[in-house]
Amino acid sequence: MPLPQHVRLVEVGPRDGLQNEKQPISVADKVRLVDDLSAAGLAYVEVGSFVSPKWVPQMAGSAEVFAGIRQKPGVTYAALTPNLKGFEAALEAGVKEVAVFAAASEAFSQKNINCSIKESLERFVPVLDAAREHGIRVRGYVSCVLGCPYQGEVDVQQVTAVAAELDAMGCYEVSLGDTIGVGTAGATRAMFEVVGARVPRERLAGHFHDTYGQALANIYASLLEGIAVFDSSVAGLGGCPYAKGATGNVASEDVLYLLNGLGIHTGIDLDALIAAGQRICQVLGKENGSRVARARLAKA
Amino acid sequence: MPLPQHVRLVEVGPRDGLQNEKQPISVADKVRLVDDLSAAGLAYVEVGSFVSPKWVPQMAGSAEVFAGIRQKPGVTYAALTPNLKGFEAALEAGVKEVAVFAAASEAFSQKNINCSIKESLERFVPVLDAAREHGIRVRGYVSCVLGCPYQGEVDVQQVTAVAAELDAMGCYEVSLGDTIGVGTAGATRAMFEVVGARVPRERLAGHFHDTYGQALANIYASLLEGIAVFDSSVAGLGGCPYAKGATGNVASEDVLYLLNGLGIHTGIDLDALIAAGQRICQVLGKENGSRVARARLAKA
Repeated sequence: MPLPQHVRLVEVGPRDGLQNEKQPISVADKVRLVDDLSAAGLAYVEVGSFVSPKWVPQMAGSAEVFAGIRQKPGVTYAALTPNLKGFEAALEAGVKEVAVFAAASEAFSQKNINCSIKESLERFVPVLDAAREHGIRVRGYVSCVLGCPYQGEVDVQQVTAVAAELDAMGCYEVSLGDTIGVGTAGATRAMFEVVGARVPRERLAGHFHDTYGQALANIYASLLEGIAVFDSSVAGLGGCPYAKGATGNVASEDVLYLLNGLGIHTGIDLDALIAAGQRICQVLGKENGSRVARARLAKA
Repeated sequence: MPLPQHVRLVEVGPRDGLQNEKQPISVADKVRLVDDLSAAGLAYVEVGSFVSPKWVPQMAGSAEVFAGIRQKPGVTYAALTPNLKGFEAALEAGVKEVAVFAAASEAFSQKNINCSIKESLERFVPVLDAAREHGIRVRGYVSCVLGCPYQGEVDVQQVTAVAAELDAMGCYEVSLGDTIGVGTAGATRAMFEVVGARVPRERLAGHFHDTYGQALANIYASLLEGIAVFDSSVAGLGGCPYAKGATGNVASEDVLYLLNGLGIHTGIDLDALIAAGQRICQVLGKENGSRVARARLAKA
């Protein structure tokens, strides 16, 4: 299979990333980050989530962030909406695309969202229905596709079942997430082969964490399987909530460097992306999690 | 091409790694590191180098390290010997395998070893002759195979010429090094295709630095090209002398995790390797550069 010529990066730093940073961050800084990212050429930014601030305090103010950003034509600004209440709040904030989040691991679903996989999928039905009614596209996430922090192994048939269910419900794309970064290249390829037999590969995305340093190898393995959409987080924002001090989301800069090297088009400017990541790291007072950014900034 | 079933890791931490650490380290700690590594199952450890301490002060005492280690049967303990004088010192220290080091970049050769590529290769002829006489195997390194800190691009034909020359001289294996970590997976595959047409792939090894986060993707790409020997450094010892604060040698633990995931046999115990790396990091007072080690230690 030839490598894809174009890849879309789904920038999850402002949501998945900042959600897992301890340091609180102002609405103005979030707005600046989102605007920096769209200016760098990202065509898809996950801006925030509409979820109870009791559960995810870092995501309070997502409506204000949506109100503050300069919406650039051609860019998708998305929000995570775990249920109908969240969807309605997103709608009110003018959000045009949303995402729902399920797990491939029963244990993770119970611990993370307090319900079974089946219950979580049922909860999405009214979200998908309302989205259809309002002409809003819905992206689906499946977490723990290559391993679970609670149950360990995850059956690829379970991943396939959840992905196929989200696809059948009407999600236009399903992102398969190695939430704890334990997967390696062979398992990644095998997963896309199996899931890809049920859900067309052009409707699948890869979401890799670099906790065990495997993310770029897994992305390369995914490209070899024809996958052309990847989630990543500028400056590797986010860390790993399941292993304190360990690495979380793969850094967008490092993914972009790989894609540039492979001659794959993304429309993203690496220097501008590095600058966006470095700026938010300075706001957070933390070291940049992108190796490309660190190497470039060390040389500058 | 099927993936190799067995891979040999060449552990370069005690030499290439420690050589680039600022913190001085005692002979006893080096001996302990080498013994920890062989106990973990590494079958090849580059122990030190016989080079003027004026140039590489961290490598002073290599003879004492060789005298102090417990040589485990079946394990190769190698030393870098840049010239005949170094070779003779290594011989005196009882070294059974040596390595020579050339560059694929003319600018790097001049800056790094003060001579042209051609002169450096000529300097190796008496080393190879003497080694043959004493029944000592010689491994060859080629640096800057995917880019140079001084001249930028490096022609793959130049890499091929230097690798072929080392092979013709009698090096039993030639390790191709991405010294500054700028290479990506496509360039890695293309390089092994071109060089592999001149030097048999079973006599080639890959040496990757993780400066731009690409090392594991490049190693996976190399495996797909049938390469089955990789250099790596426990705990990512070494850093990058060309970009202060950036990452250098790929961490052995992270490579092993990839290989284990692919079901490739190495004979190395991951837990023992992590313990060896963590111990030397504590001696050096530095953060562990292996993501696998950090993730495992964070969970423990």
